[in-house]
Amino acid sequence: MKHQEIKTMQRVYLASRPDGAVTPENFGFETTALPSPGENQVLVRVHYMSLDPYMRIMMDDIESYQAPTQIGETMTAGGVGEVITSNSPDYQPGDFVMGSFGWATHACADASKLVRVDPEIAPISTSLSVLGMPGLTAWFGLRKFADMTAGETLVVAAASGPVGSMVGQLAKLAGLRVVGIAGGPEKCALVRDRFGFDACIDHRAYDSAADLEAALKEVCPDGIDIYFENVGGKVFEAVFPLLNPFGRIQVCGAIAWYDENGPNANPVTERLALPELWRVVNSKFLSINGFVIGKHFDELGNFITEIAPLVKSGKIAYLEDVAEGLENAPEAFASMLKGGNTGKQLVKLI
Amino acid sequence: MKHQEIKTMQRVYLASRPDGAVTPENFGFETTALPSPGENQVLVRVHYMSLDPYMRIMMDDIESYQAPTQIGETMTAGGVGEVITSNSPDYQPGDFVMGSFGWATHACADASKLVRVDPEIAPISTSLSVLGMPGLTAWFGLRKFADMTAGETLVVAAASGPVGSMVGQLAKLAGLRVVGIAGGPEKCALVRDRFGFDACIDHRAYDSAADLEAALKEVCPDGIDIYFENVGGKVFEAVFPLLNPFGRIQVCGAIAWYDENGPNANPVTERLALPELWRVVNSKFLSINGFVIGKHFDELGNFITEIAPLVKSGKIAYLEDVAEGLENAPEAFASMLKGGNTGKQLVKLI
Repeated sequence: MKHQEIKTMQRVYLASRPDGAVTPENFGFETTALPSPGENQVLVRVHYMSLDPYMRIMMDDIESYQAPTQIGETMTAGGVGEVITSNSPDYQPGDFVMGSFGWATHACADASKLVRVDPEIAPISTSLSVLGMPGLTAWFGLRKFADMTAGETLVVAAASGPVGSMVGQLAKLAGLRVVGIAGGPEKCALVRDRFGFDACIDHRAYDSAADLEAALKEVCPDGIDIYFENVGGKVFEAVFPLLNPFGRIQVCGAIAWYDENGPNANPVTERLALPELWRVVNSKFLSINGFVIGKHFDELGNFITEIAPLVKSGKIAYLEDVAEGLENAPEAFASMLKGGNTGKQLVKLI
Repeated sequence: MKHQEIKTMQRVYLASRPDGAVTPENFGFETTALPSPGENQVLVRVHYMSLDPYMRIMMDDIESYQAPTQIGETMTAGGVGEVITSNSPDYQPGDFVMGSFGWATHACADASKLVRVDPEIAPISTSLSVLGMPGLTAWFGLRKFADMTAGETLVVAAASGPVGSMVGQLAKLAGLRVVGIAGGPEKCALVRDRFGFDACIDHRAYDSAADLEAALKEVCPDGIDIYFENVGGKVFEAVFPLLNPFGRIQVCGAIAWYDENGPNANPVTERLALPELWRVVNSKFLSINGFVIGKHFDELGNFITEIAPLVKSGKIAYLEDVAEGLENAPEAFASMLKGGNTGKQLVKLI
C-alpha cells in the first residue's frame, strides 16, 4: 500500500484516570482522519513507539515536570518513524526521525522538534532504547551527578531494564563494582551474564527491606557509594542504610511509588521517615540529585558520539521487548509497570 | 593569679543521655587536677567555648559523623584560649589558639590540631562565631552547593543565628532576594534591620506548615531557589512546596528533629512523606547536599582571608550571646536548643 492511499490513522487516548494500577478501561482507541502537516511540519508514519514509566505519572492529575495528560488527549510517547509528507526544507519523505508522536500510528510534528535518525548506525528501534532516551538517561545521570571513581560500588535497580542495564555497563567500564537489583531469577541471570554486573539480587526473594538490606550487604562488602534510583520503595529502604559517607543518589524515577495501590507499590515502612533521612543526608554528607532527561536532550549528540561505537562493537549490550500493534500498547504498558518486561519496552506499529 | 599557681581545672561531662529535651541532670560537673601536656602538645587555658546544636546529636547513642559522647566523658566543644604551657616548637605561652577543648576550663591538645588565632584581626571570640565554624559553615555550604545567581530567592531559618545570619548576608552580597525565618518578633526585627534581609517570617506566628507556607509565599513571589536547611520540621515542610525547578537544598542541620520530644520538635505531618519528597526531587530536578563543616576545616584560611575584611569594615554584621562561667554552660545549652539565644552562643570562662 502506498503512503498516499492511507487516509486514516489510529490513536490511543486517556479515557479515565487510574485508581492505582492502570487497567484497559483507562484507555480509548480511535480511528481518525490523517492530519495534514502545517507550515514547517512533517507528517510521520511511526514505526516504533516507546513505553516508559513517566507516562504513568502523566495519567494522574498532579503537578509534575510535564502537564498531566488530559482526558481524551492522546497518550504521550516518544517514537521513531519515517517522514511521509514534509512542509519543511530540512526533511524529505523517506527520512527517519525521532520525536514525540504519542500513542499513534501517525503524527504531525514541528520539524524543529525532531531528531534525525541514521539507520546506518544501528536499527532505528535503538533510537528509543540503547541509543535513545533510556541510554541517554543513564549516561547523563552518571556523568553529571555520580562522580564515579574506579573501585567504588554502584547499585542500580530495575537492572535488566534499559536504563539500569546501561547504568551498570557504564559503571563497569569506569572500573566500579556494580550490583544490580531485579525481579526474578531470569532477570538476575541476564543482568549478570549478558550485562556483566558483578552481582544481582532478586528483590522478590526478600519480603522485607531489612532482609533485602542483609542480602545487599553481602554483595557490597565495602558499602554503597552510588545509588542510581529508578524504583524507590523497598529497594530504596534497603540501600539507604548501606550508603557510605559522601554517597551520591541520582533520583531518576521511583516506579514503586508511582502506582500507590498497584502491584508494584512498595510504601516505605516505619524504618525510614523524613527526619531520619535528613539526619543521614547531613551526617553522611550525601548528595541527592533529581533529574529528568527531557531537560537534557541537547546532550543527545555527545551521547551518541560516545556510545554508538560501543554498541556497534558489542561492548555495550542491549535488549528490547517489542509488542506488536498499537492495540496492544495498553496491555504492554500495564505489564511493564508490573515489571513484566525484560528489556526496553517498545511497540512496533508497522 | 599566675598560671603557675593553678593546679586544678573544671570540666562538664555527660552524666546521662537525654530522653527528649536536655535537663540539668544530663550533665555532671567536676574539678580535677590540671593535666600535663605530652610530647608536641600544649596546655590551653580556655577563654571562650562554643555551644552548638551538633552537641545534642552526640548526647544520643546513635551512629553519626562523630562517635557519641560516652557517659562520663567531657562534653565536646570548640574553644579559643591561650597557651600556658607548650611542648611544641610551634607555639609559645601567650599564643592564642582555637581547637577542640571540650566543656572545660583547660585542655591539653596536639599542636597539629590547633589553629592559630590572631587577636589583631578581631576579638578572639569571633574565631568561634562570625570568623569561626558557624561563619565557615555558611560560607562553605553556599560556595560549594548553592550555585547562587543574582536575582534568585534564598530562604534560611534560624536566621538570626550565627549560621543563618551569615548565609543571608552572603546571599545579599551576591545579589539574591533573601528571606529569613526566625522565632519571635524581636529576632525577626534583628534579621531585617541588623542583618539586612529583605524579609523575615516569624514561624511562631503560624501553627501549621500550611499557614507558614502561605506567609512565605507572600514574601517569595518568585518561589524559592535555595533553601539552606538548619532546622527541618515545620519550616522544611513549608518551604518544600515553594521550591522552584532546579532548586538547591543544603542540609546543614535539622535542629527541630534532633530533640524528638523537646519543645523545639516539629515532626513532619502527613503533608510530606518520602514518596512525595522523592517525586518532587525527581520532577523538579532538585539538588540536595548534606555536609558537616568538620570535614572542611582546610577551607578556614580561604574563608578568613575573604570574610575578615568584610567583618572589619562592617559589611558583615554579627552577634554573640555570651554566658558567664562553665557552671552556666548546661543551662545556656538547653536554652539555645529551645531557641533562647539570639546570636552565636558562647560561654566565657575567664
